[in-house]
Amino acid sequence: MSAFLPSYCRVFAKAGYNVALIARTADSLKKFAEEIKDTGGEMIRLSDQREQAAAFPIENYSGAAIQSAFASIKSQWPESPLRVALWNTGYVIWKPFLELKPEEIQESVDTNIVSAFAFSREAITAFKDLDIDEKGKRGTLLFTGATASLRGNTTTSAIAAGKFGLRALSQSLAKEFGKENIHVAHAIIDGVIVTDRTKARIPAEKLENPDAFLNSESIGNSYLYLVNQDRSAWTWELDLRPAHEKW
Amino acid sequence: MSAFLPSYCRVFAKAGYNVALIARTADSLKKFAEEIKDTGGEMIRLSDQREQAAAFPIENYSGAAIQSAFASIKSQWPESPLRVALWNTGYVIWKPFLELKPEEIQESVDTNIVSAFAFSREAITAFKDLDIDEKGKRGTLLFTGATASLRGNTTTSAIAAGKFGLRALSQSLAKEFGKENIHVAHAIIDGVIVTDRTKARIPAEKLENPDAFLNSESIGNSYLYLVNQDRSAWTWELDLRPAHEKW
Amino acid sequence: MSAFLPSYCRVFAKAGYNVALIARTADSLKKFAEEIKDTGGEMIRLSDQREQAAAFPIENYSGAAIQSAFASIKSQWPESPLRVALWNTGYVIWKPFLELKPEEIQESVDTNIVSAFAFSREAITAFKDLDIDEKGKRGTLLFTGATASLRGNTTTSAIAAGKFGLRALSQSLAKEFGKENIHVAHAIIDGVIVTDRTKARIPAEKLENPDAFLNSESIGNSYLYLVNQDRSAWTWELDLRPAHEKW
Amino acid sequence: MSAFLPSYCRVFAKAGYNVALIARTADSLKKFAEEIKDTGGEMIRLSDQREQAAAFPIENYSGAAIQSAFASIKSQWPESPLRVALWNTGYVIWKPFLELKPEEIQESVDTNIVSAFAFSREAITAFKDLDIDEKGKRGTLLFTGATASLRGNTTTSAIAAGKFGLRALSQSLAKEFGKENIHVAHAIIDGVIVTDRTKARIPAEKLENPDAFLNSESIGNSYLYLVNQDRSAWTWELDLRPAHEKW
Repeated sequence: MSAFLPSYCRVFAKAGYNVALIARTADSLKKFAEEIKDTGGEMIRLSDQREQAAAFPIENYSGAAIQSAFASIKSQWPESPLRVALWNTGYVIWKPFLELKPEEIQESVDTNIVSAFAFSREAITAFKDLDIDEKGKRGTLLFTGATASLRGNTTTSAIAAGKFGLRALSQSLAKEFGKENIHVAHAIIDGVIVTDRTKARIPAEKLENPDAFLNSESIGNSYLYLVNQDRSAWTWELDLRPAHEKW
Repeated sequence: MSAFLPSYCRVFAKAGYNVALIARTADSLKKFAEEIKDTGGEMIRLSDQREQAAAFPIENYSGAAIQSAFASIKSQWPESPLRVALWNTGYVIWKPFLELKPEEIQESVDTNIVSAFAFSREAITAFKDLDIDEKGKRGTLLFTGATASLRGNTTTSAIAAGKFGLRALSQSLAKEFGKENIHVAHAIIDGVIVTDRTKARIPAEKLENPDAFLNSESIGNSYLYLVNQDRSAWTWELDLRPAHEKW
Repeated sequence: MSAFLPSYCRVFAKAGYNVALIARTADSLKKFAEEIKDTGGEMIRLSDQREQAAAFPIENYSGAAIQSAFASIKSQWPESPLRVALWNTGYVIWKPFLELKPEEIQESVDTNIVSAFAFSREAITAFKDLDIDEKGKRGTLLFTGATASLRGNTTTSAIAAGKFGLRALSQSLAKEFGKENIHVAHAIIDGVIVTDRTKARIPAEKLENPDAFLNSESIGNSYLYLVNQDRSAWTWELDLRPAHEKW
Repeated sequence: MSAFLPSYCRVFAKAGYNVALIARTADSLKKFAEEIKDTGGEMIRLSDQREQAAAFPIENYSGAAIQSAFASIKSQWPESPLRVALWNTGYVIWKPFLELKPEEIQESVDTNIVSAFAFSREAITAFKDLDIDEKGKRGTLLFTGATASLRGNTTTSAIAAGKFGLRALSQSLAKEFGKENIHVAHAIIDGVIVTDRTKARIPAEKLENPDAFLNSESIGNSYLYLVNQDRSAWTWELDLRPAHEKW
């Protein structure tokens, strides 16, 4: 059970994981449904056969809502403990500093940081009760970062503040809970991911260049690799970018 | 005119600046008054003679409160434009992750990040209207960072999230407003500063070791140096630590 | 074909790679032979059946010697082009600064940096002639870094200078050759690896703690993962440390 | 007494320091002489009155040559101990990786790293015998870094390897000798410095933009500020760039 975007879900579903998606109704879940349709029902088939995938809509990313979603996930699969949690949400905003509205700044730190603390608390609390598995882990908590996790820039003050804060959280957790065999990792996604939104914005012939964009499944493969690292050699942070990305 | 703790004020007051202190009534301003008493009235003398120092109590660090304080400062010294602003406030909390209360996490990001955005907006808005001075600047905006600005650690998730976020803000602003001749800098304070609070906690004979603690006046001198850097060679970030600090 | 320590070799050999080891006769190759013996002849079996592993002793890490070793590797397996190269050598020295001899400093930069340039030239030159494979790569060039790649410390000036330099090389190459579909990656090994040398120094009961030491095979698995990353999501840098490592 | 380019010398000479310049005859010293001529003899006047400036030509940057230069400096001013040493030399080379000649790579690490170790040894050995001055220091050892100290890039592998290595040295020394009251600092120069060479390459009307280029005197002022920091608040690293520099 864990929480992430459909695109990464499939990698974990194929690897045999039950997949729980926590998302705010209005946006991600609708996409989730569309994706199921788009992919010819692959996710549905998974669900049909083994109830392997399920969605947990929440109103907002408040601590209470997140806590309640984790409780629902637990009831959904009482026999399968949570082993992987992926924080992949973000409030992305690019604007010149003086055009930022106070509520946008607040939303950026609340979604990118405060909600991530609540999510992490649920994941770590769940992991702590588990036995150490054959890889030497109680569980793996993954965070999706971005270029803005490492560098502030003109027009990125609000998103960078949120993403820097998230990176601090992930590093603190990695140090605090590594010694309890909970693996915390942070991926810096440096480039443009191919999503439905990207497809709407970028001409198809450009998107077809396999060296220029990040593929969600490839990112998912890296997340799965992190989950499979054994206790003797854990990664806290790695970067991921297309072969031809300029950086 | 600008906003900082008494300890740094004095350096700027001695250098001829009018000093405005913005602080929440309950804590910093009381300390400010005590410090004036402690130092044999030096700050009072400054105020008496030239009305060089003044305090601007605010209820909280909301955007509205900060905006209003900047307006009051402007009325206080209508002839002296704001040339230096120092963000020196912080919500410091050290706790194992699972003991953090949701309101403490919220307070850390709100005080360390959201309020710093509001403060920066006022400072930059004020600077933008000014002429470029003989150093090639419209104004200098300084931020006080800490070891937790660079590294998350066990027990520092909340403060590190706030301080990482603040660093992102300062770097974004440095890049966005450097080209408008506004100098933004960030100081990493790596060590223990001698303050009234430190004095209560650390034995006097230890505190007398001049190689082991940060002196506020020395930090103030570094801030003044940053303010005096001319346009051809500006520093965005420097670290400050005692000679014998282990790092 | 590629160049690395026996411990990582095995992972690649199991994955079907031919493995070439370049090393200075006096130290690593002897260990290589012992390791083959130690492991009950596993490497020999591989060699016997498919001539999958071979050693290429060199007198020193001069450019000429490295060039000649790459030429020999090419003749050894004329049908199998070089697809992976791992720079895993290092001159490790820990000493207070004033006790360092000039020749030790020279040796550290020559081995850690200058030889790595020569090795990289051979690998990249070989990769450039190859077709892009199904993963979207001409080849992968891997570098083994260390904690000293990121931080200088008391007693580490010579090794840190070498390892910082190596990291600069790897980042430069990643940026220059990514656009030619050559993947360059750098792993920060942060902790103690279990090797024959470690076994001689550390009591067996300590070494048996699976959370406290890096296992060569686990590192090898991470290297193999990097080699298998497809062109849409390449990692330049990751860290690897034991679950309980303090950092 | 200390070793740096004429441009920074003047700041220290004005502040009352005796200035010793160590340089290879063929390049820097000739420039030194021209600069004296250019500036209407200012340096000569200083020399005349107080023998405040002197040049110490060396054949190469070998350890022996550097050691001998430090001995000559000591004899020149037997009454004035060395208090400040600035390593400002560098071998700068920008080339695509495959066009680099082996001797260029060797020269980059030898000049940028190995010679800096030799220089540092002389400076630190000299400082160790001195009393702690009123600022709390035995001496200050400064290093000039560059953008290439922090980032490798296409065409910068050789210079970045050297500059990364130099940064590692400076950080190691700062940590090892801070506790002996020797202050070691590293400045990241991020931008183009106005020098005779720049003047030959860049049109005068561009160079007149005071926001676009680094002024040597301003850099010198920052070095002097570092030297004047008292023991309670030392900076190891700061960056310096023009107000309008894009970064």
